[in-house]
Amino acid sequence: MAQPYDLPLSELEKYKPPLTRQPDFDAFWDRTLRELAETPLSYELTPHDYPARGVRLFKVVYSGFRGATIQGWLALPEGEGPFPGLMLYHGYNWAMEGQIHDTVNWALHGYAAFLMLCRGQQGESADNTVYSHGAQAGWMSKGILSEDEYYYRGVYMDAVRALEVLASLDQVDRTRIGVSGGSQGGALTLAAAALSDIPVVAAADYPYLAHFERAIDITPSGPYLELNEFFRRNGDPEIEARAKRTLSYFDVMNLAPRVKCRTWVSIGLVDTITPPSTVFAAYNHLNCEKSISVFRYFGHEYIPRAHEQRLRLLLETLQP
Amino acid sequence: MAQPYDLPLSELEKYKPPLTRQPDFDAFWDRTLRELAETPLSYELTPHDYPARGVRLFKVVYSGFRGATIQGWLALPEGEGPFPGLMLYHGYNWAMEGQIHDTVNWALHGYAAFLMLCRGQQGESADNTVYSHGAQAGWMSKGILSEDEYYYRGVYMDAVRALEVLASLDQVDRTRIGVSGGSQGGALTLAAAALSDIPVVAAADYPYLAHFERAIDITPSGPYLELNEFFRRNGDPEIEARAKRTLSYFDVMNLAPRVKCRTWVSIGLVDTITPPSTVFAAYNHLNCEKSISVFRYFGHEYIPRAHEQRLRLLLETLQP
Amino acid sequence: MAQPYDLPLSELEKYKPPLTRQPDFDAFWDRTLRELAETPLSYELTPHDYPARGVRLFKVVYSGFRGATIQGWLALPEGEGPFPGLMLYHGYNWAMEGQIHDTVNWALHGYAAFLMLCRGQQGESADNTVYSHGAQAGWMSKGILSEDEYYYRGVYMDAVRALEVLASLDQVDRTRIGVSGGSQGGALTLAAAALSDIPVVAAADYPYLAHFERAIDITPSGPYLELNEFFRRNGDPEIEARAKRTLSYFDVMNLAPRVKCRTWVSIGLVDTITPPSTVFAAYNHLNCEKSISVFRYFGHEYIPRAHEQRLRLLLETLQP
Amino acid sequence: MAQPYDLPLSELEKYKPPLTRQPDFDAFWDRTLRELAETPLSYELTPHDYPARGVRLFKVVYSGFRGATIQGWLALPEGEGPFPGLMLYHGYNWAMEGQIHDTVNWALHGYAAFLMLCRGQQGESADNTVYSHGAQAGWMSKGILSEDEYYYRGVYMDAVRALEVLASLDQVDRTRIGVSGGSQGGALTLAAAALSDIPVVAAADYPYLAHFERAIDITPSGPYLELNEFFRRNGDPEIEARAKRTLSYFDVMNLAPRVKCRTWVSIGLVDTITPPSTVFAAYNHLNCEKSISVFRYFGHEYIPRAHEQRLRLLLETLQP
Amino acid sequence: MAQPYDLPLSELEKYKPPLTRQPDFDAFWDRTLRELAETPLSYELTPHDYPARGVRLFKVVYSGFRGATIQGWLALPEGEGPFPGLMLYHGYNWAMEGQIHDTVNWALHGYAAFLMLCRGQQGESADNTVYSHGAQAGWMSKGILSEDEYYYRGVYMDAVRALEVLASLDQVDRTRIGVSGGSQGGALTLAAAALSDIPVVAAADYPYLAHFERAIDITPSGPYLELNEFFRRNGDPEIEARAKRTLSYFDVMNLAPRVKCRTWVSIGLVDTITPPSTVFAAYNHLNCEKSISVFRYFGHEYIPRAHEQRLRLLLETLQP
Amino acid sequence: MAQPYDLPLSELEKYKPPLTRQPDFDAFWDRTLRELAETPLSYELTPHDYPARGVRLFKVVYSGFRGATIQGWLALPEGEGPFPGLMLYHGYNWAMEGQIHDTVNWALHGYAAFLMLCRGQQGESADNTVYSHGAQAGWMSKGILSEDEYYYRGVYMDAVRALEVLASLDQVDRTRIGVSGGSQGGALTLAAAALSDIPVVAAADYPYLAHFERAIDITPSGPYLELNEFFRRNGDPEIEARAKRTLSYFDVMNLAPRVKCRTWVSIGLVDTITPPSTVFAAYNHLNCEKSISVFRYFGHEYIPRAHEQRLRLLLETLQP
Repeated sequence: MAQPYDLPLSELEKYKPPLTRQPDFDAFWDRTLRELAETPLSYELTPHDYPARGVRLFKVVYSGFRGATIQGWLALPEGEGPFPGLMLYHGYNWAMEGQIHDTVNWALHGYAAFLMLCRGQQGESADNTVYSHGAQAGWMSKGILSEDEYYYRGVYMDAVRALEVLASLDQVDRTRIGVSGGSQGGALTLAAAALSDIPVVAAADYPYLAHFERAIDITPSGPYLELNEFFRRNGDPEIEARAKRTLSYFDVMNLAPRVKCRTWVSIGLVDTITPPSTVFAAYNHLNCEKSISVFRYFGHEYIPRAHEQRLRLLLETLQP
Repeated sequence: MAQPYDLPLSELEKYKPPLTRQPDFDAFWDRTLRELAETPLSYELTPHDYPARGVRLFKVVYSGFRGATIQGWLALPEGEGPFPGLMLYHGYNWAMEGQIHDTVNWALHGYAAFLMLCRGQQGESADNTVYSHGAQAGWMSKGILSEDEYYYRGVYMDAVRALEVLASLDQVDRTRIGVSGGSQGGALTLAAAALSDIPVVAAADYPYLAHFERAIDITPSGPYLELNEFFRRNGDPEIEARAKRTLSYFDVMNLAPRVKCRTWVSIGLVDTITPPSTVFAAYNHLNCEKSISVFRYFGHEYIPRAHEQRLRLLLETLQP
Repeated sequence: MAQPYDLPLSELEKYKPPLTRQPDFDAFWDRTLRELAETPLSYELTPHDYPARGVRLFKVVYSGFRGATIQGWLALPEGEGPFPGLMLYHGYNWAMEGQIHDTVNWALHGYAAFLMLCRGQQGESADNTVYSHGAQAGWMSKGILSEDEYYYRGVYMDAVRALEVLASLDQVDRTRIGVSGGSQGGALTLAAAALSDIPVVAAADYPYLAHFERAIDITPSGPYLELNEFFRRNGDPEIEARAKRTLSYFDVMNLAPRVKCRTWVSIGLVDTITPPSTVFAAYNHLNCEKSISVFRYFGHEYIPRAHEQRLRLLLETLQP
Repeated sequence: MAQPYDLPLSELEKYKPPLTRQPDFDAFWDRTLRELAETPLSYELTPHDYPARGVRLFKVVYSGFRGATIQGWLALPEGEGPFPGLMLYHGYNWAMEGQIHDTVNWALHGYAAFLMLCRGQQGESADNTVYSHGAQAGWMSKGILSEDEYYYRGVYMDAVRALEVLASLDQVDRTRIGVSGGSQGGALTLAAAALSDIPVVAAADYPYLAHFERAIDITPSGPYLELNEFFRRNGDPEIEARAKRTLSYFDVMNLAPRVKCRTWVSIGLVDTITPPSTVFAAYNHLNCEKSISVFRYFGHEYIPRAHEQRLRLLLETLQP
Repeated sequence: MAQPYDLPLSELEKYKPPLTRQPDFDAFWDRTLRELAETPLSYELTPHDYPARGVRLFKVVYSGFRGATIQGWLALPEGEGPFPGLMLYHGYNWAMEGQIHDTVNWALHGYAAFLMLCRGQQGESADNTVYSHGAQAGWMSKGILSEDEYYYRGVYMDAVRALEVLASLDQVDRTRIGVSGGSQGGALTLAAAALSDIPVVAAADYPYLAHFERAIDITPSGPYLELNEFFRRNGDPEIEARAKRTLSYFDVMNLAPRVKCRTWVSIGLVDTITPPSTVFAAYNHLNCEKSISVFRYFGHEYIPRAHEQRLRLLLETLQP
Repeated sequence: MAQPYDLPLSELEKYKPPLTRQPDFDAFWDRTLRELAETPLSYELTPHDYPARGVRLFKVVYSGFRGATIQGWLALPEGEGPFPGLMLYHGYNWAMEGQIHDTVNWALHGYAAFLMLCRGQQGESADNTVYSHGAQAGWMSKGILSEDEYYYRGVYMDAVRALEVLASLDQVDRTRIGVSGGSQGGALTLAAAALSDIPVVAAADYPYLAHFERAIDITPSGPYLELNEFFRRNGDPEIEARAKRTLSYFDVMNLAPRVKCRTWVSIGLVDTITPPSTVFAAYNHLNCEKSISVFRYFGHEYIPRAHEQRLRLLLETLQP
């Protein structure tokens, strides 16, 4: 797709639709965080052979929301530390081989890097929710008829807990922890920054799960369309209304005002999976110190210059 | 796709690859059926308004494998009965609005028609397995590392139990029950015929879940590719070996010799979702009274003449 | 196509472009109906074997416009009747195997269901016009240089005559006859309701042949594009002007004000074959009792909830 | 398509499947030619303005098979003549603006060039057959249930008659007439050379309508697929058998042995509309003086070197 | 693409964005033309066998900008002459077999027709610039960081020199020389008309290289996208700025006001390679006698009626 | 593409077509290497700011074949060294932003990593050959009519010289230098290993430029098709013969027997850009210590497990 298909940049920069929070939005998250706190911090590290000098790789298994078994990969630089920590979240239905190479590279850059595998999506991360209704293939509509049951409730809490695991490590300087990820990982980056006090910097590439109402209307490809498909299979308008209500709790646009740490976002103008307007909708509701990098010629993909900017941001904030 | 892309028809007719059953294949299914029997038969019917005369529609909720809540739609002809029963299974990731219109039409044809909604795929049918590892989006790789955990174990048993529900109804003549469905529904038709003594006739359109080894190698589109994707994300050869071992238990080719009732299968020669050779592999292992209808110009889709043949077969066997 | 690509719904609801009727529009149709009347009502019914109880299927051959041989399928419920009648029209270049299964199902719902096969498109329905010029493959540009010769003149009249055949049957209660169809069948539904007094209710799914001027400009796919192709092969602006003049006579938008019976229309917002604005253009010119059902997530396809609404409408009006 | 998808060249060169002629094949064509002869030779030339010096363009209207009105374009070089004649046939559903520019260019090359517009496809060429059954959109299945009614019967005879018109012109040297065309025009070139004694040379680019039995099985795109679609809509095996019997009369493979004049054929190895094996099947049945040009890197398209070879062949044979 | 995707025609007709000329725009071209003049006019004609009467074909090799070896094909009508001259430029990455057939046909129409092969693109035309940086595959970004080095500087000058070669031929009436071409050839047509006094008429089909700023933003396909790709590989904003500055010198929109001869332009409204707005942007800046032909139903392709208009224009102006 | 489309693995493993070397093959490369030696070793390092600790990045400019300016990126680990060296080559038309992030990561793994930018493709690497004829867009057909002029002659020599640059650095242990790259970079890896004594290990992912004769025939996508396109534009069989003769000198299959160092190759079985058979053709002609990794489910893309194998191989051989 060669041309901007969404709003022009000048409008994107001002695009700030009203929040769609339900009255109990903050109460819901407070309650959810309290429920997370009921599961004690618990994890196990198993060293994992990796063909590189200067780094130690561990398989991590920890207890997530409602005690779910969640796996991650932890790569530590050689040496004593403490090192700055970097929490990493991966994209939707991605994480080939657990993205261990990427995680290791971050460790070689000096970070205690911890990649969480999303429940049900990869590795031993188990989704322990039994959903009370059927869903479209994928994760987007699992439990969508209730904010208490929705799939991402567990994922967001697993992400918060992962930060707590990282912060608890001896090798980690818990005052210097950042969060980063792209797409679903970008959404988790913003959600974790909104729901946890641990991160001091957040770097989100083309964050997903933002401004669902518009996303459903305009997104040409990718997993937002699972929602459209769910509404095709279940055409009752009341179901659609309930689902949209549920989504509002997990919309990172609605979570954005809760973010307190310094935040950087990137977006390509020909991104057809997380349309620019949905990303700007979330970004423009951030009240923290923030910046956004816009790439005219890129879509939902690796953007070398964005990577450089993220490297620099993290270097400045976490390895000053 | 205009041309036959799989084996030519003359080879398909003779295509009978060796079974890939593990030594404990039958023991596994005996054990599984015993486990099903531990859940007592239990269901509830709720009348559902439907704009047609001559038929009564009910939402059915019953206890499936390991007590899972499974939903179905039951349509009964007007009158006293007993009616011949027709068990219906739906395609993968399909079942829009629960396929109630189709189910009702079968009732208007004189059958007590019962459509099962597959667990996790539609309606209130809940998948109550907590899988111990992540999977590719969809259902094909859920629990694939163990035959005890694999997704279709529950589905196959829910399908058997659905037949037991249907057979237990007062309005149904349990000596005249057929099973039918296309694609995933065709696989469930064969599996149910193999694992239950209830059906006296089975009609399977382009059955899925057959001859996995070849399906993984040649299928150009559709959900078999979830397996290919799973092996991309998890490239350890041992994982692939374990997964293929698991699949062997659920391969309808391996179940085919257990089918005892009269069975009819249909397949289109340009079907790119359930390639003809995978269907013939299962068909050629059927030892029951059987017939197959081949359609040169059709793929994975509604085939009017196949429908007529199914109508005639069911009429002859169930409404003689 | 995930996103609305045509006007937003709020504009669609008000979208009412001026009619494009020529001054002799009504005169043309009066003259055409008189010409139809010159062919005496004549038809023959031949019983046809069908594997279902409770229904009788007949092949019907009748004399259409200018004496053309037109075929249809008639399915009657068992019993004496009289039954309410349901006239069915099929989609463009469709009608596989004459859609007999669909027609039979309507009979099982209690209707004397009669499906007309469009001339030249299927079965023994013969197009007896010798067109005076060449056309793009398909039927859209046959005879397009003159309203007297245009292909759909015969089809519209065949559709009216089919209603007269249906109404003349002993088994039919001619005061309770409805018309229904989708796409081309939706256009014929509206056209028949505009040009015949027989129907008391009309149900049109995504009607085709509406608001040609805009359709030519915006339709991304489907048979409207035959017109674009015709204008590519014949670039003389005068030919385009004559063709558009001809089309104006057959535009169901222009016929809409003539409809007197209760009318229901359905349309999906991602329909790329009959764009929503072309359907609303016709709908908004209906002056009868009317309603429209809009489906956000559907295109030019089977819409389960639309089917339920049609069932209910016909039940209320024809089987009260 | 980068790779040869049909037989390799070494096999193509030997590919000579048995003819599929019915016993009355020659009798059918003799009878058909006699019927053509019953329509007296009759035509009218109307000068047509064209922006070029050195050429005169005429619209020609003549009586084709069963008196059908057929149009063509005749371009004559300036001067007295007599000129060698070149009969041109166009591709299926093509002939934009009657291909007048191409026809004029042939006249500038020294030929009395006459392009026939196929009945029903372009210009004023009228298809005067009333077909007794419906067909798939397009011309391939019109009248396909009977060799007497099939669409191409008229077209082949119109093509023969066009040669007779050309040969009768004062400005034409009737001993030096060639025929040429591509695709459908290539089929008509071979058919005219088989059914008329007039041409002394034939040049056919990727001829269509050849070896239908295989074409239906392997052709990936283009109008052969109309036959596949017809068999989808009409699945009765007897209909398929009758249709294939009809096609056998018009298969240029079956007509090839009747060709007496020098003949040249071209084909590209990545032609997906008229697969190479279908073209070689016809070519290898030619018993006349013949040659074939094979183009490894070309499909169904303009091939500059083929054009040069045709120019040279015609120059040598018609302007020696 | 069926629908207009760019501005509506009423806006296109008025679309006249500001020129983007740098202050030294005219100075740059004056300097460039002076540099061309330093290479003396030098060429060689070699007769080339061609299978046609009435025309003589020559391979021409001449010295282009900075002495580059440039090849062309010259076709002369038979006879003494002097003939009107027609300079022809070809499309981007096109010119199969040097387009000799097309060139010959123009000679048969009475013109001394000369087709230049663009440097580096075809035949013996050698691009003698050594570019100081890497580029995206293709020619669009070669030397793009400097107007002195940019690829099209040489091409434009070669095009001017080709006119000088043509005008110097004895067989050519240098007061009657036209220029013509499509796409890249259309751009060269306008550029040559702007930079040379030789042509008295210019005919440009869908000219390329126009209004780059918008082209980069909206063009869906074709070689403009090489620029987008270049900016993906080289994301430094300064590089983008320098490249756009360079392009401004070669933008035919900026050159348009320099054109003095009568000029005709054609464009299709569904042209996705040279979007209509980019063509109108250039056209609306022409200050010469001018006309434009707009084709609603055509894209970037052969348009028969446009060809007729070009023939007529050239006939009127060059062969009055 | 889900299925293996090339030879089955069992045949690939034995696939060893005859070499296509010309008699002077080795003489050509000896002569070419001598010509390289005439250009003295010369380079310049410029430090480049990069946001990472533990690594120093330098822009390198050196003199390549015939003195061409060639750029590369050199990343050195912090510390004194000497470090093992890793020469990196990039893919065709790729190297976004010079692949600096990837190069830096290799340095963090302990290597003096040097990425060469291919002449004309990226950065300041200038292609200083003036080709004597036109080519298809891209680099594959530049100078293809002569082995002395062909584009890859310079590239292969630049690759050899890059190794000499790397080996000459004080920080590098010249006895521990490896080469690596994918696609075009894989071809350069094998070519450099064949033409230089410096590398002690070579790791080539899906190497390109192998077994051209078959590649031209079967490759479905990617830059091999530039050759097909060149032969479309230039259909003279003699041109094709000359081009194929030229390619034989650069075919890594023909160079394979010259490789002496340990070599590892990877290939995916659904790779449609460098088909498996072309890669095995080269691999099976390697006479060195060698191994190949085959990936059933991968195409021409990042393969995580291949990366791990390369890391391990390099670790074992270069950092023992």
